[in-house]
Amino acid sequence: MTTSDAHTPASGQPRTAAGQPDTAAGQPHEATAPARALGAHKAYIEGERPGLRVPVRRVHLSDGRTLTLYDTSGPYTDPSVTTDVRRGLDTPRAPWIAARGDTETYPGRTVRPEDDGPRHTVPRGGARDIDAIFPGRPRRPRRARTGAPVTQLAYARRGEITPEMEYAALREGIAPEVVREELAAGRAVLPANINHPESEPMVIGKRFLVKINANIGNSAVTSSIEEEVEKMTWATRWGADTVMDLSTGRDIHTTREWILRNSPVPIGTVPLYQALEKCGGKAEELSWELYRDTIVEQAEQGVDYMTVHAGVRLAYVPLTARRTTGIVSRGGSIMAAWCLAHHQDSFLYEHFGELCEILAAYDVTFSLGDGLRPGSVADANDEAQFAELRTLGELTAVAREHGVQTMVEGPGHVPMHKIKENVELQQEMCDGAPFYTLGPLTTDIAPGYDHITSGIGAAMIAWWGTAMLCYVTPKEHLGLPDRDDVKTGVITYKIAAHAADLAKGHPGAREWDDALSQARFDFRWEDQFNLSLDPDTARAFHDETLPAEPAKTAHFCSMCGPKFCSMRISRDISERFGAGSDVELSKEEIAAGMIEKSREFAASGNRVYLPLAE
Amino acid sequence: MTTSDAHTPASGQPRTAAGQPDTAAGQPHEATAPARALGAHKAYIEGERPGLRVPVRRVHLSDGRTLTLYDTSGPYTDPSVTTDVRRGLDTPRAPWIAARGDTETYPGRTVRPEDDGPRHTVPRGGARDIDAIFPGRPRRPRRARTGAPVTQLAYARRGEITPEMEYAALREGIAPEVVREELAAGRAVLPANINHPESEPMVIGKRFLVKINANIGNSAVTSSIEEEVEKMTWATRWGADTVMDLSTGRDIHTTREWILRNSPVPIGTVPLYQALEKCGGKAEELSWELYRDTIVEQAEQGVDYMTVHAGVRLAYVPLTARRTTGIVSRGGSIMAAWCLAHHQDSFLYEHFGELCEILAAYDVTFSLGDGLRPGSVADANDEAQFAELRTLGELTAVAREHGVQTMVEGPGHVPMHKIKENVELQQEMCDGAPFYTLGPLTTDIAPGYDHITSGIGAAMIAWWGTAMLCYVTPKEHLGLPDRDDVKTGVITYKIAAHAADLAKGHPGAREWDDALSQARFDFRWEDQFNLSLDPDTARAFHDETLPAEPAKTAHFCSMCGPKFCSMRISRDISERFGAGSDVELSKEEIAAGMIEKSREFAASGNRVYLPLAE
Repeated sequence: MTTSDAHTPASGQPRTAAGQPDTAAGQPHEATAPARALGAHKAYIEGERPGLRVPVRRVHLSDGRTLTLYDTSGPYTDPSVTTDVRRGLDTPRAPWIAARGDTETYPGRTVRPEDDGPRHTVPRGGARDIDAIFPGRPRRPRRARTGAPVTQLAYARRGEITPEMEYAALREGIAPEVVREELAAGRAVLPANINHPESEPMVIGKRFLVKINANIGNSAVTSSIEEEVEKMTWATRWGADTVMDLSTGRDIHTTREWILRNSPVPIGTVPLYQALEKCGGKAEELSWELYRDTIVEQAEQGVDYMTVHAGVRLAYVPLTARRTTGIVSRGGSIMAAWCLAHHQDSFLYEHFGELCEILAAYDVTFSLGDGLRPGSVADANDEAQFAELRTLGELTAVAREHGVQTMVEGPGHVPMHKIKENVELQQEMCDGAPFYTLGPLTTDIAPGYDHITSGIGAAMIAWWGTAMLCYVTPKEHLGLPDRDDVKTGVITYKIAAHAADLAKGHPGAREWDDALSQARFDFRWEDQFNLSLDPDTARAFHDETLPAEPAKTAHFCSMCGPKFCSMRISRDISERFGAGSDVELSKEEIAAGMIEKSREFAASGNRVYLPLAE
Repeated sequence: MTTSDAHTPASGQPRTAAGQPDTAAGQPHEATAPARALGAHKAYIEGERPGLRVPVRRVHLSDGRTLTLYDTSGPYTDPSVTTDVRRGLDTPRAPWIAARGDTETYPGRTVRPEDDGPRHTVPRGGARDIDAIFPGRPRRPRRARTGAPVTQLAYARRGEITPEMEYAALREGIAPEVVREELAAGRAVLPANINHPESEPMVIGKRFLVKINANIGNSAVTSSIEEEVEKMTWATRWGADTVMDLSTGRDIHTTREWILRNSPVPIGTVPLYQALEKCGGKAEELSWELYRDTIVEQAEQGVDYMTVHAGVRLAYVPLTARRTTGIVSRGGSIMAAWCLAHHQDSFLYEHFGELCEILAAYDVTFSLGDGLRPGSVADANDEAQFAELRTLGELTAVAREHGVQTMVEGPGHVPMHKIKENVELQQEMCDGAPFYTLGPLTTDIAPGYDHITSGIGAAMIAWWGTAMLCYVTPKEHLGLPDRDDVKTGVITYKIAAHAADLAKGHPGAREWDDALSQARFDFRWEDQFNLSLDPDTARAFHDETLPAEPAKTAHFCSMCGPKFCSMRISRDISERFGAGSDVELSKEEIAAGMIEKSREFAASGNRVYLPLAE
């Protein structure tokens, strides 16, 4: 492979300091604003396939070395690319999809006023007007030409390494064949709807880097379209690997269109939310026909994965009656209400095969929802939860038969000693399908800090085999996340994911920690900042105590002051014992050298501290 | 036991909203300002011993029930107590100490100008003036009358249940005999210097609630005495069980005097820091005499536990030479520098027996420092670290022979898969002595968020047996924590400690989570806030989205809006299936009831949602 750097220095991380007021709301294209030079640049790795370029964040260290990091931020951080939120992103996947020759364009479902809900704010007057809301790129959707699945799973089983697989493999620093194998076995998914050609392919599976998802979405209470698009670009710039649009309020169709056309990462949804809007919020009026129509609508728009709560069966609902917190999944309680109202198993469960056929025609990935997940540590690992999990295992097998990529969602609220059982049972019951968990929260006593209560559980469950973590923000249980909350949630979950990558021994994970630790030991403050998950916050915190520029290269840090610093003394020891040399010494040689060095130490006048410049 | 409530409603948690500017710096007595009624009150549990009153935080729920929580906030949150930072707190332990008859007062060491360092800001002119700086309570220190130890360990071994043990047991909700047994076996410590009669006794050991420590302390660069006292009261009000004063700058003696006289929690120090100040920051000029003098000085003031880096032996120093981050412990690198300069084992190691005799005469607890702890995930669990741990095990045995209470410090920076080995080895090598760890940080890539990288490790290591966790603030590696950082660090570590209590199955731990979850399920927002670790933040976050007062009792939450809420539907299911009743139904009965209830559901017009008041 070859690599190239974007011509103008830029950074793969946003420049806005933590806590800065959200002045950019409603201006998602501010993403292309020039960034101040930080020693970090957008670069591309080129694959064997002509034209396949994988974006990375490349950190240039002051000692001349570089570190290459995974980059989810899309074209927004490439200063050579001009983006326009009303036109959408370029479509790198379009030629690959077309070249396969197994799909065709067609007029598509007619967009209807109710797609944006009864309380829409966008202009109205029939399908034409709704289409006109996103005027950037009028187009016809694409679907499978025959009944055969056009999914990455189907290609992988056939032994094909698609450009998407090669792309994802390059990002992971792993052989494309490994990606294909994991996909073929159903142990990984590569969510890539053929109608979302803007997306940069990525893979979710336990052999790969742990991924994180950020939820966005308006609700009936607050939020606007622009804010949601801005949240998406913001979340991906801090490291979100996928984004779920959980909008439940007005303008659902239009909001999603904007998000998809501007998103470099796969987009997930819970189609049930929109279906419920279409029948005025009355769960008992939901029907297979209404739901199917919504699935097609979203598949045509390009949604990459869909949460489907098909595991909520009528017989499981009573198992929740004595719980401390009943059913806390929104989708789960909608389906429970439907089951009760009709006294039968749900249309999702009954029509699951038909659902698979639709998803296979667009390569939409299943995210089988855990509608009965525990909503408190009191309810963790109970009969209701595991009964549903067993059903999700059965449905996973059905989906795979249809060639549909499938991952399985997990809890929720689980105390630490009950976390491992969740992964083990899921992997067993669902035959190794990727696990995608929400947290879990390890205690319920800290509303306002549930990014932390859940970050603990997330790191652990990912270490034990969860492939993707759904973030939790500080506003969980209390309100809708704003821009700062989204950033805090993403950073917290990047920490959890990376801590798990380290613990799993993922090749290359340690390199990042070691580069930063080495910079810390060498007092290369600028390198430390540039290597940080959040360079702005690290820099700002440091500058609070020692704002003067020279402090960043001074041989002391801000905790101990100039007179004494353990890192400084430690460097001295390291120099005396020749750690910098490449020669491997035996313990005895080291000890002998130590005695000699100690005499030198005394002879030098016991000067442990180098003279300071001050 | 009987209980009593303070007459005026108050709260065991501070009232200041997160992020509010630190207007109270320098006015620690603002703690007694009237608090707004919150449904939480300071109360006392009375023991069998006359006059023994243990403070608790009692939350009064809107359904008439109460929940009693552990309270570390001291008299500051009791509106019936008037505190004055210049007079100090009352001394509840004084009569207990006197009644034992094994100690005597004496003139004490003469306080010297150098005790406050060369760059003091307090008035100077000899010992009298320095004493006058804290005019509140002139007094003579107390020490053992004979050579016999006056420690809680010695009493426990003799079979005595001291008032301190009874007090700590009441706080834990556990039998006093269990506290005595654990102390006698050396598996727990009860840090309680006889010269700190202001302290409210507490116990540290793996059979008890996991404790957390907050570090404060000025440095040569920033900070003032008043700020440090304020940080102490602030940290304990959010839940710090102990506080370490790590001051290294000016006015060390006076700062510590202020902190001790006003602290309801045990205070720890690293005496080496002050000793180093006394010899102008030149590690090689440290001596046993200078160190011993500092130990006596601090023991007379009332320091409850002291970190002593006696495990840094000359032979271990070369083991750090090839590390990524060398020696990161300040104490560790001071001792390493001394060992190198003198080419011999340190005065701490060589005089350890004499040191034990001094600590035994005041009941100062050892916190055996891990001077060679790893400073990066790269260095975790290496030869240097475990060589020192083995020595700490030997020293633990020596300390116990002298009747000195002992805990052992641990890392630091450790990836998740290497955490468990740390606890297991420490417990084995140190014969079950309490482990007291700093984090550990599970990754090095997130400066600015090390409360989170370490909160993950802290929760896990505490689950596996660590008795006390030293907090890490967001400023770790970057600067000195301010008021907000201290609060964030404490709350994060309370989460880690409580998550561990839950996972360990500590009796009573689940009650708190269940009460909050039940309040959440019942839409009792005010109860949720009052039960939160940080009621102010929870309330503020909620009010951001739905600021109107009625929202707090409305039957919908701020995420889904009024039309749909999963908790609401879930309550409905719960009511239909009679979860509220006490009758235990079989699965078959539940299923039969379900069918009947479903018919009722249809007959009622499929009304899943109750009419809203809006």
